[in-house]
Amino acid sequence: MSKLRVNAFSLSLDGYGAGPDQSLENPLGVGGPALHKWAFSTRTFRKMFGQEGGETGVDEDFAARSFENVGAWILGRNMFGPIRGEWPDDSWKGWWGDNPPYHVPTFVLTHYKRDPIVMEGGTTFYFVTDGIHSAIEQAKAAASGKDVRVGGGISTIRQYLQEKLIDDMHVAISPVLLGRGENLFAGLDMLNLGYQCSEQVATALATHVVIKRA
Amino acid sequence: MSKLRVNAFSLSLDGYGAGPDQSLENPLGVGGPALHKWAFSTRTFRKMFGQEGGETGVDEDFAARSFENVGAWILGRNMFGPIRGEWPDDSWKGWWGDNPPYHVPTFVLTHYKRDPIVMEGGTTFYFVTDGIHSAIEQAKAAASGKDVRVGGGISTIRQYLQEKLIDDMHVAISPVLLGRGENLFAGLDMLNLGYQCSEQVATALATHVVIKRA
Repeated sequence: MSKLRVNAFSLSLDGYGAGPDQSLENPLGVGGPALHKWAFSTRTFRKMFGQEGGETGVDEDFAARSFENVGAWILGRNMFGPIRGEWPDDSWKGWWGDNPPYHVPTFVLTHYKRDPIVMEGGTTFYFVTDGIHSAIEQAKAAASGKDVRVGGGISTIRQYLQEKLIDDMHVAISPVLLGRGENLFAGLDMLNLGYQCSEQVATALATHVVIKRA
Repeated sequence: MSKLRVNAFSLSLDGYGAGPDQSLENPLGVGGPALHKWAFSTRTFRKMFGQEGGETGVDEDFAARSFENVGAWILGRNMFGPIRGEWPDDSWKGWWGDNPPYHVPTFVLTHYKRDPIVMEGGTTFYFVTDGIHSAIEQAKAAASGKDVRVGGGISTIRQYLQEKLIDDMHVAISPVLLGRGENLFAGLDMLNLGYQCSEQVATALATHVVIKRA
């Protein structure tokens, strides 16, 4: 059964998934990189960015698990880029260069139509303008029975949680405060939506939490 | 130098410090006790409630540390009891019976005047009606050079954080979701207020986080 999953989503102590003021210079927002220290330390993420070495252990286990059995991704538009409103032209192709780290069909939620972009390495970006349910349908069809991973950001994950559509979610709480941003949980009654924590294990760099629908 | 401290304050994954719908039957709110599982496991807290045994280790270290060098407490009114508005009479003397676990002068924030209550074991409850700054002054004067500990709840801690008056804060994030309540961090720009995380260490029952003003 194909699942809708969130994995390796880093969260600050104060509940934010990115720093404030995202821009071309600060794709993760101001202070955002500190959120991902645990991930950058792992063998899996280092390999993804062409680096050698990296830690093994709990952080690595969660990093590796995050890429297993993923047949398609869904991304909010701000995860795809800093542009807001209409696409000025077709030049922006994501933060990741010619060969993005997805390698499967990747559906970007946006209000503004755009043609698909075929990238190197198996990633094709599709732009979905008719809502989060349509994005799931398209992503599940493209995933050939594998899971669909929701990459974020906070607003996108919250919309899917609100509709009880996320089956399970791994968040990594990092020991940093970001001060401002969108809060993942505030105002979202996770308990009433049927979610509970099924696993918590911590390393020096992050507390890994798995949340599932009961 | 006498500090204003928060210690052993349990927080859910979604950022709440108590369950919703606090009442006489549910002093910690619905689902609230699950927040404190780490504390109830420790030697220090078990002893406080007249029970034998208890774990030693990281949870116990934080529990023991929470009571060291405390000369006075400040509590929000909801931590003192379920009564809202005017005091109907003098019968309510806190949740804790004749010998509360404070053993020092304890200042309760309220909008409604009431005479002090001398309890067994060294606790005297004083009712402060002229605001959070007055409560600190009175508590520091009563603490004879020791620290003042803010017990909670969320609203009280937020007010002191907003004024940059908390020197350091230990929160224990428990692997539970509560769904509703007051969120400790949402809308409070901790970074801009000068706070940062100085320590994070986790056990199977909680992730202990220490936050200090830079």
